[in-house]
Amino acid sequence: MTQRIAVLGATGSIGDSTLAILAAQPHTYEVYALSGYHRLDKLFALCQQFLPKRVSVPTSAVDDFAHRLKAAGIDSEVVGGEAGLVDIATDSQTDTVVAAIVGAAGLPSTLAAARAGKRILLANKEALVMAGKVMIDAVKKHKATLLPLDSEHNAIFQCLPLAIQQDNTQIHQSNHGVRKLWLTASGGPFLQQSFEQMQQASVAEAVKHPNWSMGQKISVDSATMMNKGLELIEACHLFDLPEDKINVVIHPQSIIHSMVEYSDGSFLAQLGSPDMKTPIAHALSYPDRIDSGSQPLDLFALSGLEFIEPDLQKFACLRLARQAMQAGTQATIVLNAANEIAVAAFLDGKIRLTDIANINEQALNGIQLPPLNETADIEDILAIDKIARHLTDKLVAKLT
Amino acid sequence: MTQRIAVLGATGSIGDSTLAILAAQPHTYEVYALSGYHRLDKLFALCQQFLPKRVSVPTSAVDDFAHRLKAAGIDSEVVGGEAGLVDIATDSQTDTVVAAIVGAAGLPSTLAAARAGKRILLANKEALVMAGKVMIDAVKKHKATLLPLDSEHNAIFQCLPLAIQQDNTQIHQSNHGVRKLWLTASGGPFLQQSFEQMQQASVAEAVKHPNWSMGQKISVDSATMMNKGLELIEACHLFDLPEDKINVVIHPQSIIHSMVEYSDGSFLAQLGSPDMKTPIAHALSYPDRIDSGSQPLDLFALSGLEFIEPDLQKFACLRLARQAMQAGTQATIVLNAANEIAVAAFLDGKIRLTDIANINEQALNGIQLPPLNETADIEDILAIDKIARHLTDKLVAKLT
Repeated sequence: MTQRIAVLGATGSIGDSTLAILAAQPHTYEVYALSGYHRLDKLFALCQQFLPKRVSVPTSAVDDFAHRLKAAGIDSEVVGGEAGLVDIATDSQTDTVVAAIVGAAGLPSTLAAARAGKRILLANKEALVMAGKVMIDAVKKHKATLLPLDSEHNAIFQCLPLAIQQDNTQIHQSNHGVRKLWLTASGGPFLQQSFEQMQQASVAEAVKHPNWSMGQKISVDSATMMNKGLELIEACHLFDLPEDKINVVIHPQSIIHSMVEYSDGSFLAQLGSPDMKTPIAHALSYPDRIDSGSQPLDLFALSGLEFIEPDLQKFACLRLARQAMQAGTQATIVLNAANEIAVAAFLDGKIRLTDIANINEQALNGIQLPPLNETADIEDILAIDKIARHLTDKLVAKLT
Repeated sequence: MTQRIAVLGATGSIGDSTLAILAAQPHTYEVYALSGYHRLDKLFALCQQFLPKRVSVPTSAVDDFAHRLKAAGIDSEVVGGEAGLVDIATDSQTDTVVAAIVGAAGLPSTLAAARAGKRILLANKEALVMAGKVMIDAVKKHKATLLPLDSEHNAIFQCLPLAIQQDNTQIHQSNHGVRKLWLTASGGPFLQQSFEQMQQASVAEAVKHPNWSMGQKISVDSATMMNKGLELIEACHLFDLPEDKINVVIHPQSIIHSMVEYSDGSFLAQLGSPDMKTPIAHALSYPDRIDSGSQPLDLFALSGLEFIEPDLQKFACLRLARQAMQAGTQATIVLNAANEIAVAAFLDGKIRLTDIANINEQALNGIQLPPLNETADIEDILAIDKIARHLTDKLVAKLT
């Protein structure tokens, strides 16, 4: 049976990889719906290629985009804005939602997909960093399926026993022999450089990731290791573990994508070329496997694989992520929001790379908010996010 | 419920590791039966420690051993010889048979355990190298469970999907997304040395394994890489794959114990300290996990992990194993028998280390035997083994 796929965030790099796989397996997957935001020309080209039934664009672009499609003889229905994304994500025809919108903008549609009991291939970090509890509760309550696309979380998922994989990926602590999870990190472009060198880094140096080709925001997060901090928070929610059960190890070659340590001394690891097509193909076809079209890993071409303990002085963002996870949901929302503002300020040339951690720390320690209660929903979360961004703007302004 | 364990080959190194785990988990496992052959004093000490219900010793030692136990107030029943081993392996009280007898001597009891539908923890290589088809057929027919203890095969088992694990570990080709298996090899003590240096190697140099502490025969097999060749043959039977679906990669650090490559580009690997307690604990508790008591792997202490393609000129035994596997069961029996004779001759100082491969090749190509038919049983296999040994003795004599 054909699986109908909605790719939310179709014009980004996850979208590219996903659509490359879907294009190669037209009898297995139908590209049912697509969404785009900034790159509407690219989205238009994808509509020409895949002829999706539905497309979501920014509200202001709906009419233009619909005319353009019509003129080209494409009869995709065009919907707009957040409501359009939610509509596509919950569409009864949609089997699988690829949640690849970057940032808080992806939150409502991802959560809506969970509440509609969909199969969700999750690349949107914010869904778990900002709304982990709400998201996981929705997945459980509505029997949705959550499959991680991040190479690290996907690797861990692959290394867990089937019983845990099928229980919404939750590890009930001390069960199934899982002792610890190990998130691997590349260490980013400044691994071998001093803090002082990192302090002087230009934007071009900071976004030059050694192994993966990624967007600017995530490349900066990789340089500060905040990316790994956010992934740590994601992993806590996804696998139902406290932060002290999740270790981070720098593995500069990015061949081992993460590991699970078991009580008998076994570590199970997933290895592969640094190509997102592998985890995406895994999640698309799970529990089967399909060809991903990724370059096969050439083991014999590998140089020495290394494992290094992260320096939490140099990569303070990693320490802050643990602190936030311990403190609770508000803290992770604040940290995520502060970091987005700080990274944007760095990319704008307003602050230094190493200021990002300072601003994040000031935000985390300085922004006092009433605690979220048990019934907190997405509006409460977005409200905290908004306040945190506003206050972080002030912190940035003070510095510049 | 307590699992009753029969440890056949209790005084060897697999026996040591197994009994260390069993001793630590007395409420989960009962040491129901033990067997020993050469080291009867050690076996006696184990009887004092574990008070097994039954013990098997060489036929000639039954009376003495029984008296000695009686004098010490231990009422274990003593049985003798091959019949004794088979009796213990098929005992209705035995839940699990740890098949750790080295060499062809372990064959009848291992096969009997399969025919009695037991859970078998397999360390006896010969059961699969000599009698792979007979053994696997028996496991399937009598619904036995076969769990590999070799660190490599155990690693592969751990990296396979549950559906394959529970189907008697058989991979039905092109199913479940398994593309290839990767057996890792340490490369032995001569990895960095020339063929000429290998030719001059003393027995002491040859048995000095870099990572694992093992017996003499298997240490020499590791030096010639015949050990990996035998493991390749085992893996073909155990996982129902032709030899060209199983690659060998030299990984001198012996941290990754083997891997499974999937069609989506994922490699799943099992890592751990080089300590047999980990795979034994895995197999004992499968599908659960228990503490193995092995030293936890310290990832941060690892130096660069390397992967090297084996040199089939230098390690000709590996090439011969593939050739034998392609040729069929007689060939693998001949190769195994010839190798045992050749290794013994090397350990006796009669031939050079590099002569082992020569003798194996001469035996493989020179010993002509009628093909085994479909109904071939253990007697036929042992008959070929006997002829092969006799003819290999002559090859050795010609050389010395």
